[in-house]
Amino acid sequence: MSFQNPVFIPGPTNMPEHLLQACAMPTIDHRSSLFGDILHPVLDGVRRVLKSTNAHIFIFPSTGTGGWETALSNCLSEGDKILAARNGMFSHRWIDMCERHKLDVQVVETPWGDGLPAAKYEKILKADKNHDIKVVLATHNETATGVKSDIAAVRAALDAAGHPAMLFVDGVSSIGSMDFRMDDWGVDVAVTGSQKGFMLPAGLAIVGFSDKALAATQTATLPRTFFDVNDMQKGYDANAFPYTPPVGLLRGLLASLNMIEDEGLENVFARHTRIATGVRHAVDAWGLTLCANSPDVYSDSVSAIRTPDGFNATDIVTVAAEQYGMAFGVGLGEVAGKVFRIGHLGMLTDAMMLSGLGVAEMVMVDLGLDIKLGSGVAAAQDFYRHGS
Amino acid sequence: MSFQNPVFIPGPTNMPEHLLQACAMPTIDHRSSLFGDILHPVLDGVRRVLKSTNAHIFIFPSTGTGGWETALSNCLSEGDKILAARNGMFSHRWIDMCERHKLDVQVVETPWGDGLPAAKYEKILKADKNHDIKVVLATHNETATGVKSDIAAVRAALDAAGHPAMLFVDGVSSIGSMDFRMDDWGVDVAVTGSQKGFMLPAGLAIVGFSDKALAATQTATLPRTFFDVNDMQKGYDANAFPYTPPVGLLRGLLASLNMIEDEGLENVFARHTRIATGVRHAVDAWGLTLCANSPDVYSDSVSAIRTPDGFNATDIVTVAAEQYGMAFGVGLGEVAGKVFRIGHLGMLTDAMMLSGLGVAEMVMVDLGLDIKLGSGVAAAQDFYRHGS
Amino acid sequence: MSFQNPVFIPGPTNMPEHLLQACAMPTIDHRSSLFGDILHPVLDGVRRVLKSTNAHIFIFPSTGTGGWETALSNCLSEGDKILAARNGMFSHRWIDMCERHKLDVQVVETPWGDGLPAAKYEKILKADKNHDIKVVLATHNETATGVKSDIAAVRAALDAAGHPAMLFVDGVSSIGSMDFRMDDWGVDVAVTGSQKGFMLPAGLAIVGFSDKALAATQTATLPRTFFDVNDMQKGYDANAFPYTPPVGLLRGLLASLNMIEDEGLENVFARHTRIATGVRHAVDAWGLTLCANSPDVYSDSVSAIRTPDGFNATDIVTVAAEQYGMAFGVGLGEVAGKVFRIGHLGMLTDAMMLSGLGVAEMVMVDLGLDIKLGSGVAAAQDFYRHGS
Amino acid sequence: MSFQNPVFIPGPTNMPEHLLQACAMPTIDHRSSLFGDILHPVLDGVRRVLKSTNAHIFIFPSTGTGGWETALSNCLSEGDKILAARNGMFSHRWIDMCERHKLDVQVVETPWGDGLPAAKYEKILKADKNHDIKVVLATHNETATGVKSDIAAVRAALDAAGHPAMLFVDGVSSIGSMDFRMDDWGVDVAVTGSQKGFMLPAGLAIVGFSDKALAATQTATLPRTFFDVNDMQKGYDANAFPYTPPVGLLRGLLASLNMIEDEGLENVFARHTRIATGVRHAVDAWGLTLCANSPDVYSDSVSAIRTPDGFNATDIVTVAAEQYGMAFGVGLGEVAGKVFRIGHLGMLTDAMMLSGLGVAEMVMVDLGLDIKLGSGVAAAQDFYRHGS
Repeated sequence: MSFQNPVFIPGPTNMPEHLLQACAMPTIDHRSSLFGDILHPVLDGVRRVLKSTNAHIFIFPSTGTGGWETALSNCLSEGDKILAARNGMFSHRWIDMCERHKLDVQVVETPWGDGLPAAKYEKILKADKNHDIKVVLATHNETATGVKSDIAAVRAALDAAGHPAMLFVDGVSSIGSMDFRMDDWGVDVAVTGSQKGFMLPAGLAIVGFSDKALAATQTATLPRTFFDVNDMQKGYDANAFPYTPPVGLLRGLLASLNMIEDEGLENVFARHTRIATGVRHAVDAWGLTLCANSPDVYSDSVSAIRTPDGFNATDIVTVAAEQYGMAFGVGLGEVAGKVFRIGHLGMLTDAMMLSGLGVAEMVMVDLGLDIKLGSGVAAAQDFYRHGS
Repeated sequence: MSFQNPVFIPGPTNMPEHLLQACAMPTIDHRSSLFGDILHPVLDGVRRVLKSTNAHIFIFPSTGTGGWETALSNCLSEGDKILAARNGMFSHRWIDMCERHKLDVQVVETPWGDGLPAAKYEKILKADKNHDIKVVLATHNETATGVKSDIAAVRAALDAAGHPAMLFVDGVSSIGSMDFRMDDWGVDVAVTGSQKGFMLPAGLAIVGFSDKALAATQTATLPRTFFDVNDMQKGYDANAFPYTPPVGLLRGLLASLNMIEDEGLENVFARHTRIATGVRHAVDAWGLTLCANSPDVYSDSVSAIRTPDGFNATDIVTVAAEQYGMAFGVGLGEVAGKVFRIGHLGMLTDAMMLSGLGVAEMVMVDLGLDIKLGSGVAAAQDFYRHGS
Repeated sequence: MSFQNPVFIPGPTNMPEHLLQACAMPTIDHRSSLFGDILHPVLDGVRRVLKSTNAHIFIFPSTGTGGWETALSNCLSEGDKILAARNGMFSHRWIDMCERHKLDVQVVETPWGDGLPAAKYEKILKADKNHDIKVVLATHNETATGVKSDIAAVRAALDAAGHPAMLFVDGVSSIGSMDFRMDDWGVDVAVTGSQKGFMLPAGLAIVGFSDKALAATQTATLPRTFFDVNDMQKGYDANAFPYTPPVGLLRGLLASLNMIEDEGLENVFARHTRIATGVRHAVDAWGLTLCANSPDVYSDSVSAIRTPDGFNATDIVTVAAEQYGMAFGVGLGEVAGKVFRIGHLGMLTDAMMLSGLGVAEMVMVDLGLDIKLGSGVAAAQDFYRHGS
Repeated sequence: MSFQNPVFIPGPTNMPEHLLQACAMPTIDHRSSLFGDILHPVLDGVRRVLKSTNAHIFIFPSTGTGGWETALSNCLSEGDKILAARNGMFSHRWIDMCERHKLDVQVVETPWGDGLPAAKYEKILKADKNHDIKVVLATHNETATGVKSDIAAVRAALDAAGHPAMLFVDGVSSIGSMDFRMDDWGVDVAVTGSQKGFMLPAGLAIVGFSDKALAATQTATLPRTFFDVNDMQKGYDANAFPYTPPVGLLRGLLASLNMIEDEGLENVFARHTRIATGVRHAVDAWGLTLCANSPDVYSDSVSAIRTPDGFNATDIVTVAAEQYGMAFGVGLGEVAGKVFRIGHLGMLTDAMMLSGLGVAEMVMVDLGLDIKLGSGVAAAQDFYRHGS
């Protein structure tokens, strides 16, 4: 198996070699201060990336999905009421998890391609005079549709309604790649993973809890052990985990945080915007459109691109893999076959992005789409030349 | 941070460099056949290590603790009755997890240092005429006390009672290092992790389900999503996970399985017995005793060594780390301060083990114990020379 | 330092990660059979890549330049007469080395951009009735000009003249990337390195000697110790080197040979031709020309591209590095400032090549050349789509 | 191939994993400032390790043997007179190299086990009224016999004779492990490699030239190209080598220099003395003696241990490798079969050394020597416990 080409799936991302090397460390005693020297700077660094001054950071050997479960099982009890919008596969899955945990979810069905409906949230919250709704779920970046939502607007809805519900945000494909403001937006639980903005292998659920969320754990009765944040906190206080920690991945996360802060968090965001804008120029040049319905919701970490009616967008992904050894993302759920996705998060360069666009063009021409070879590449080049 | 010395904690083990390299792979599309080429041979190899012909193998980005939770949450419902013995910290923790999941655990308190009380199990099971007990828990190797239990005897107790309860076995620190016979012993759920016999970084819960356990998932009502084995199976059928899989670790597991099968599973067990016996000779030569109360329960993966009354065994671990840069394990729970532990599982050699024994001797002399330098080493050397 | 982009220098090449991993091995005893298990398969594999059945293969911890010195110092004596053509920087340097070793070189000055002048060689050799010329030097692929010469024609010249001179060939940037036939072409010494077709770090001089060349060592009197092939052979016969061997690099070479033979040597050559042809289509589309003067001498491992008069080609390399983090090669010697070079040897893919062409276009436009963005990329895409 | 045990050959040493990782870097443009950022700090660091303020440092892709050839071929002409003592295999080989380069060597035969005969040197130098002797060779640490010589005394001999000959010192197995003072001792050429005190793979010849040695290159007429220091200097001035540099190894050397200076050069020396002293205590406890004839010449990087008459010391090395997977060094040349060697240089710990001593004991007992198991280990433990 050789791995020459960059990948353009919306995570896991391409991994800078020194992050892989940081992960590939020999065994140390994970109950020693050596481990503490990795763990505590990691917790502090994650907190800074979340733009929080005092969030409680918890990291589990798991994935973003485990992060969702951490949020629910630590803060809620059977039958608790949840407000959520379904506007893509990942918001759908979180809703599904709520239902499996016997939570009572009020789902606002939302067109796939739209952002979260903050106005509808406000109306519902205002109507909930008894404050039965315990939590509002919000998917910051819908990886399935390439849609970024306005979390500040969701917070404003809560505030306008004077509603005390907690705000849980899935930032799996935004945190570390796009601006995320845990404190400013009044986020109570923020969830991400290691394999997106942090450019690491999958294997970590990374979660931030507000004081309010942490307080909620005292009364929440959903069963939890592996994902128990209070056990985890007790572990951290002793330089440990309640079970064996994934030491190498945490060391990789420390290296990733250093890398991000060396570049500068805002510079990282600007770079993602820049690369993504080039991709959007290419999509225009191809005469195609995004799944995302308006520029204000265009994601800077992934673009879902609609293909013409009657065309199976999944074929693009298949041919790219088989013919050119390059990985793109398929459409999921409601947009399966209708879109293909170009992931553009993590440590990308202009040059890497051009190779992705170049292959996408070849594949689309191979499949008979009316695309001019070089057209998208040229549009992106033209944008990249003039920089950010 | 430099890492020259081998570690002698009871897992994670020392990691052969080519397993670390197998883990450190570039990103691939985890929804592609490339991933299937890693996943399916891994599942087959794990099944062979469990000595099962048709167990359903599930691997989660998690740890052994997550494996325990997989067993409970997939097969049981609130209030279900469990039979378990507490003879060390890890059996204790599994019991605690049951209680947090609102299961009704009948605990057989058992001296720390003894194996599981199969005779008592039999008596209790015979008395359970209504077959209220749904599951018997059994910790194959108590990592805290260095005690190996006789799982075949537990199975015999179930059979003698004609009891239909399922048998769940924690094989975290035995599987891959000591003989484990899922089919012969009628094990319904077997649990292990990546960081012990498989010589990999922590990060995988590895679980085998019998047909009976899988059938139990249909009626079990404990909430589960991340650890849902049916979701996982659906994923596997499509060369995928229900979320992002830890591809590199799985590739490392494939390399580990190849390494184990190249050496030969029985040879791996024999090597562990050999190395462990040398350690036990050293303990004798030091005039010390094991926490394990009789030779039939001596573990081949970890030795917990009692120190004289009035001596804090934890000091050995502290001084070894600070003075000699070597990691041993502390006593946990009831035997905290009374024992220190030497882990001897994974890819150890005689030479490595001698270095561990040599440092242990220096530390014990440093701390004033009446140990003759070189005595334990000589006893182990004498045994290793004649090999097995 | 992060290293995301592929490089397009004409060697060292991009390195497949598993070759780097093969090199990064722990220390073994380099006087043991373990080392022999690496060394001998390497020598056999190199011989097959040279298309020789019985060449004597010698590998030194050095570079191609050391390989040149091995050829001269083992086979020649002060004052010996050499015939060589100068058609680029690397042929120039080998000539210079001869002169420093007090050899008497008859230099045929040849336009940079032309191949070796076999007809002139034939004339000179025919005129050398006394057979004073001991060696004919031939640079198979002039890395400076992107010119491949016809070694079979040089052999034919020797044969036509009935001349017994030895034929020494510099195959540093051809062997492993382009067809090389040591036996068919009657090559007496073939020289290459680890960092080109073998896709490894620099650090090995790899040399093949014919029986005739080896016999010449018996009478040659130039001083040599480090590069003495007879010492080296004695070492090999005992699974050793006459000094400390670069074990890791040799293990990497074994992995490289396996990789090449897994793909198939002829397939490797065809892939190089394919990638190179795409580059040449791009050059056409840009309205530029190659330094190589005719299609029969176009190199498949490197293209040297002429820029318009008055333009400093080196600026392309500078801007590509500074602005886009991508490495191309500058012009050397007589063509410094007149050409820039795109290396396309080693484990390249279409996608990688498109990224190189895309960046080259952006840079040329940045520098005011009249190039249409996307034009070269499109020409290459069009070719690669139909690929062979 | 698995590599669990440390090696105890006298180089290459065990390699700290982060040095291996530093070497395993992707390709960069070796004609760029990125390369300069590695090269120049390396040259400065090596100079500091040599304890020189203004030595000219040259690094070749080669080995220590190439370093010897660099010294001779750059500073000398055919027929030049050399003074050298032969007291082991490595001094022998350097003398042999001189003879192959047609230098006129006056050899002072010296017992293998003795240090260099400074008094005899002084006498010979005083007798050389015409100052025909151009160079005095001195092997600082004879790796074959475990003998360290007094280079200050050799310098004193030159000074006492008022003789202008240059002093060339082979510090291959001393530099970076034992005190070396280029300026204080008036060394004109110092030679070492990457695989000893620098703890890296073999592949670099590292050489320091005094101003006087560099001036001698102007008149020296031995042929040289690959090892030409003036070409090399010109390369360095442009952030380059005259040919492709081994970039990864140089990056590893930078990491090694940082590691050495983080520990502190004097601390590194003290650690070597400490580890070596423990080994010598073990040898005493075994009732054996060193090849080195007196304590003032005991080497801190390697111990050559004499075995009883009639015993083949090489068997120890063979059985250790075959039976226990551990590498020691055989006797070479005059002491072949009479000694075996324990290398103890590089990043060793007490624990690692105990494993080497423990295996050596087992092997010697296996082979019928009258050694008490644990005796040498105990003697070393007793010393190591009390620290330096």
